[in-house]
Amino acid sequence: STPIRATLFPGDGIGPEIAESVKQIFKAADVPIEWEEHYVGTEIDPRTQSFLTWESLESVRQNRVGLKGPMATPIGKGHRSLNLTLRKELNLYANVRPCYSLPGYKTRYDNVNLITIRENTEGEYSGLEHQVVRGVVESLKIITRQASLRVAEYAFHYAKEHGRERVSAIHKANIMQKTDGLFLKCCREVAEKYPDIKYEEVVIDNCCMMLVKNPALFDVLVMPNLYGDIISDLCAGLVGGLGLTPSCNIGEGGIALAEAVHGSAPDIAGKNSANPTTLLLSGVSILRHLNLHDKPDQIQNASSTQLQKGSTELLILEFSLAFFQGVGLPQQSA
Amino acid sequence: STPIRATLFPGDGIGPEIAESVKQIFKAADVPIEWEEHYVGTEIDPRTQSFLTWESLESVRQNRVGLKGPMATPIGKGHRSLNLTLRKELNLYANVRPCYSLPGYKTRYDNVNLITIRENTEGEYSGLEHQVVRGVVESLKIITRQASLRVAEYAFHYAKEHGRERVSAIHKANIMQKTDGLFLKCCREVAEKYPDIKYEEVVIDNCCMMLVKNPALFDVLVMPNLYGDIISDLCAGLVGGLGLTPSCNIGEGGIALAEAVHGSAPDIAGKNSANPTTLLLSGVSILRHLNLHDKPDQIQNASSTQLQKGSTELLILEFSLAFFQGVGLPQQSA
Ligand SMILES: CC(C)[C@H](C(=O)O)[C@@H](O)C(=O)O
Ligand SMILES: CC(C)[C@H](C(=O)O)[C@@H](O)C(=O)O
Repeated sequence: STPIRATLFPGDGIGPEIAESVKQIFKAADVPIEWEEHYVGTEIDPRTQSFLTWESLESVRQNRVGLKGPMATPIGKGHRSLNLTLRKELNLYANVRPCYSLPGYKTRYDNVNLITIRENTEGEYSGLEHQVVRGVVESLKIITRQASLRVAEYAFHYAKEHGRERVSAIHKANIMQKTDGLFLKCCREVAEKYPDIKYEEVVIDNCCMMLVKNPALFDVLVMPNLYGDIISDLCAGLVGGLGLTPSCNIGEGGIALAEAVHGSAPDIAGKNSANPTTLLLSGVSILRHLNLHDKPDQIQNASSTQLQKGSTELLILEFSLAFFQGVGLPQQSA
Repeated sequence: STPIRATLFPGDGIGPEIAESVKQIFKAADVPIEWEEHYVGTEIDPRTQSFLTWESLESVRQNRVGLKGPMATPIGKGHRSLNLTLRKELNLYANVRPCYSLPGYKTRYDNVNLITIRENTEGEYSGLEHQVVRGVVESLKIITRQASLRVAEYAFHYAKEHGRERVSAIHKANIMQKTDGLFLKCCREVAEKYPDIKYEEVVIDNCCMMLVKNPALFDVLVMPNLYGDIISDLCAGLVGGLGLTPSCNIGEGGIALAEAVHGSAPDIAGKNSANPTTLLLSGVSILRHLNLHDKPDQIQNASSTQLQKGSTELLILEFSLAFFQGVGLPQQSA
């Protein structure tokens, strides 16, 4: 059968080496994907004289599936984060971050199984900020009915498809009655169309306290952009950190751009010591998206076995490659 | 010696009963405080026809120390939260929430010892929101140089006074470069005046992940209003929840208004089953503020012993009173 074309943005820092690892693991697992690789990163590419070419964006638009490595977001450098640029340009309206305890990695929490669904285009991320007078600055938080309905729809649809019981909308409407109030109103409207799924509203501060005390209280969480940024990192912490948790951005027309959400770790780049787990599990999420049946489970199980063997915090790239190539994947059919 | 006058706002729901508990415990411990009690709450007081009288505010302004019970913040009721009103009216610019593992209360985390210092007057709490067109709403986040410097000063001063090593400024300046950028700039200016205290800047999402993985990475945390709201609840969760963690608001001219930050729990109000620990420890924080030497330690130790005895999540009011009255305070001198 003809392979599926997918876009690959290896990204900055450790990006290229963990992308290489994912490519090799997918190859070892006979995944029918042909990668279309493009450079997107914080250094100007000498070949194209660009951070991000139109062709890179077109590639995702055409293939509808893609995988991106980490891209650095310089603080206070004046230009926009590439992560945000991709979200805007490709209209990646929902960010899905599953967060589950990995069998091979012990933390203070057992059996965590949470899905954070984050509105990915507006809120505090509007980019609208200005100085009113010297010493007084303001940022605009924008909430629209359209974007709120769209992400709420996605969350309930996801919950239904994945047999989840409950959706919790996270907010601070006791303070931001108009913006977060509109977000909740939209969630309620959508909730009515899904009578089989329980719906609740939880204030963000209380949500954080409850997550830390007992993550089993939650199932699927849906929320505006900034809260999603915060809560998804908190949840990642419960199971071991951003080095272990996948992420996938969903755009209009069914685009799925999965990503490593951890940093580009320039300090260890090029040493082949970076942990590819997040990018690998993000890659797995696009295999699920493509309905590639047993492949995603095979690779996910293999990576758990792998983690169980590794005694250090980092899963060493060579070690993992040796495992996947030498030992082969358990239950591999091909 | 003449007793110190302090204001007491028992608050809503379980407020009156936990305030009663604190009064009795303070009496048993011979604390030289005379309470000046005022009603502030979400129901109109029939005696004054008011939620909040001018006399109540004046009482805090005069006494400079006060203790407040929980006050409900109705979501979407149109009128402002009383908590916020008090912060504005009394210019309570810094909110200090210490968070430490209580010897008597086991959680997943040991030896937590964090201080969250929250800017308490601006940021997303500006109250400025409007609908631009139907389906598009915005909230304004305001950051000023004055308020940022003031809270940063307080944080470094606090760190120095309490022998703390490090202050971490928490922000999202990679997205809100102007507002959070100004906040950081002010923190840096103040940090330069305290060369003995280490200073660092941590992005809020990363901070949440690190807190959950290893709270010992932090010491004193200072941050804008909304992040403080979120992080202080997260920290409270690490040690058992809002029912166990004190809070104190600091205003211009040395006002200290300590508070219970948990909810007013109307469902259990009047049953004498509410846990007074938070209000008690907040009361203790004003004793420390007043430099009442051994009293605060005595009461805090007694409450730990008490917690160690109680096997349930809740510390029963009668039980605690029996302890403090019958057994007396350990090392009590009077
Ligand atoms: C790097 C940064 C701009 C980004 C964000 O704030 O969204 C990151 O934290 C994330 O969660 O993807
Ligand atoms: C009740 C609410 C308005 C308040 C806040 O958001 O500040 C509370 O969460 C707190 O932390 O004191």
